[in-house]
Amino acid sequence: MDVNAYLRERGELVDGFLEQVLPKPGTVPPALAQAMRHLVFPGGKRLRPALAFAAAEAVGAPPERALALAAAVELVHTYSLVHDDLPCMDDDDERRGRPTVHVAYGEAVAVLAGDALLALAFEVLATQGAHDACPERALGALRDLAEAAGARALVGGQVDDLELQEVPADAARIESVHLRKSAALIAASVVGGACLAGADDARLARMRRFGEDVGVAFQITDDLLDKDEDSACSLVHALGEDGARARAEALLHQALAQLDDLGEKAEPLRELARFAVRRDR
Amino acid sequence: MDVNAYLRERGELVDGFLEQVLPKPGTVPPALAQAMRHLVFPGGKRLRPALAFAAAEAVGAPPERALALAAAVELVHTYSLVHDDLPCMDDDDERRGRPTVHVAYGEAVAVLAGDALLALAFEVLATQGAHDACPERALGALRDLAEAAGARALVGGQVDDLELQEVPADAARIESVHLRKSAALIAASVVGGACLAGADDARLARMRRFGEDVGVAFQITDDLLDKDEDSACSLVHALGEDGARARAEALLHQALAQLDDLGEKAEPLRELARFAVRRDR
Repeated sequence: MDVNAYLRERGELVDGFLEQVLPKPGTVPPALAQAMRHLVFPGGKRLRPALAFAAAEAVGAPPERALALAAAVELVHTYSLVHDDLPCMDDDDERRGRPTVHVAYGEAVAVLAGDALLALAFEVLATQGAHDACPERALGALRDLAEAAGARALVGGQVDDLELQEVPADAARIESVHLRKSAALIAASVVGGACLAGADDARLARMRRFGEDVGVAFQITDDLLDKDEDSACSLVHALGEDGARARAEALLHQALAQLDDLGEKAEPLRELARFAVRRDR
Repeated sequence: MDVNAYLRERGELVDGFLEQVLPKPGTVPPALAQAMRHLVFPGGKRLRPALAFAAAEAVGAPPERALALAAAVELVHTYSLVHDDLPCMDDDDERRGRPTVHVAYGEAVAVLAGDALLALAFEVLATQGAHDACPERALGALRDLAEAAGARALVGGQVDDLELQEVPADAARIESVHLRKSAALIAASVVGGACLAGADDARLARMRRFGEDVGVAFQITDDLLDKDEDSACSLVHALGEDGARARAEALLHQALAQLDDLGEKAEPLRELARFAVRRDR
């Protein structure tokens, strides 16, 4: 299968939904509406939404079953980028070749736009869930996403990441940051997609291990792509380039084993995992 | 009834639950755990949780039915204070006689602690909802809270509030900010409590009008208490002290009329409304 075509098609699906749910100027202050859209359109690869769709398909459901979750994980991802870029955090002026939100709209609006994107993620998922046949599953996916966005995962990982920029760390500590800062949201995308598609607990546990391994490997690949930056919180720094690549491959292998008992319908999910980990080549 | 005793007892109920759900140091980076607790304990009056409990009681349910929601609205309220105090927003060094979170823990951790409190609110509500007999109602309360926390309400109100500090506004525009920045979360507390207690749509609509009117009147009273600050976004500024107090009383009267067909069991909710609006006397 053509993974780029899959990413493009599923990207269009989630983009259409994001267009509908992002507030229009008029319903909210215009600067806020624009700041919320700034990093959503144009966006990145839409990898997390694609994983949510592919996980639903892997357990035999149509991708649309995961539509609200796909939008929600992209909104959480975008909120985290907006806040990470702030002057008090990574202090980045540019992202994807454009000014960051605080450069374009000021720091106060950037903080608030991030806050609003986070709240919108839960609003979208709860609204869709209220119309679903199975509200328990919507609540489960929502709780999982909230946990992935919270202190024990994304936020805690970012706090440790900020600290590690000053103190070099060993590989285990770096992977613990990757697991919380990157992999938890990737795992929530996969688990949430499968959950909304009706997967049972045993399947969800395997999907979680798959998502976590792919997520850590994805972050290692990010660091390989960014190797000139030489952050102290990078496996490239701790293990060298070859060591980091070997670790990412081992994680990918381990992740794919979790999908062994799924047939052809899991092929998009497998291909996305390979793409996420090998996109530096 | 003794409204102070009610606030104290229901405050203890929600505090016990908040203690359980706030992350312990060890499960998250210690500075983050402390920063998240900093404004929760010791907290304020716990008015929003009390309103959630009283709304559940007003429609005939035990207060415990609203426990997770009561904690969630307090977490959202606290997150909004942490972010509002930031240097790029209101730049406040002190709150309730103590250093604000960014003064005590630095700006990056303050932004992240606020983010984590917001995510935790939804995690708590979704976790509780998954154990409830009625997950549809948990999703409804959750969607309502997300909307109250988002761009069309709390965040949008804060964006407009920051802008109005520079441009004086008329009474209608000021009330529109109060409605979004303060009253939406108060209304979500009341509506959510009643929703989880099993109220029907007509009752929820009356509870919403009650909560919105009480919320705007509450904010006017805040401004009367802070009148020395002379913010441009204050009805005291626009209508004078007597005009503002008359408007608050009119809103309270209108709010209480929404509870006319509820008997004695709505008395705590009525008393909380009177307390919220008249606490300056």
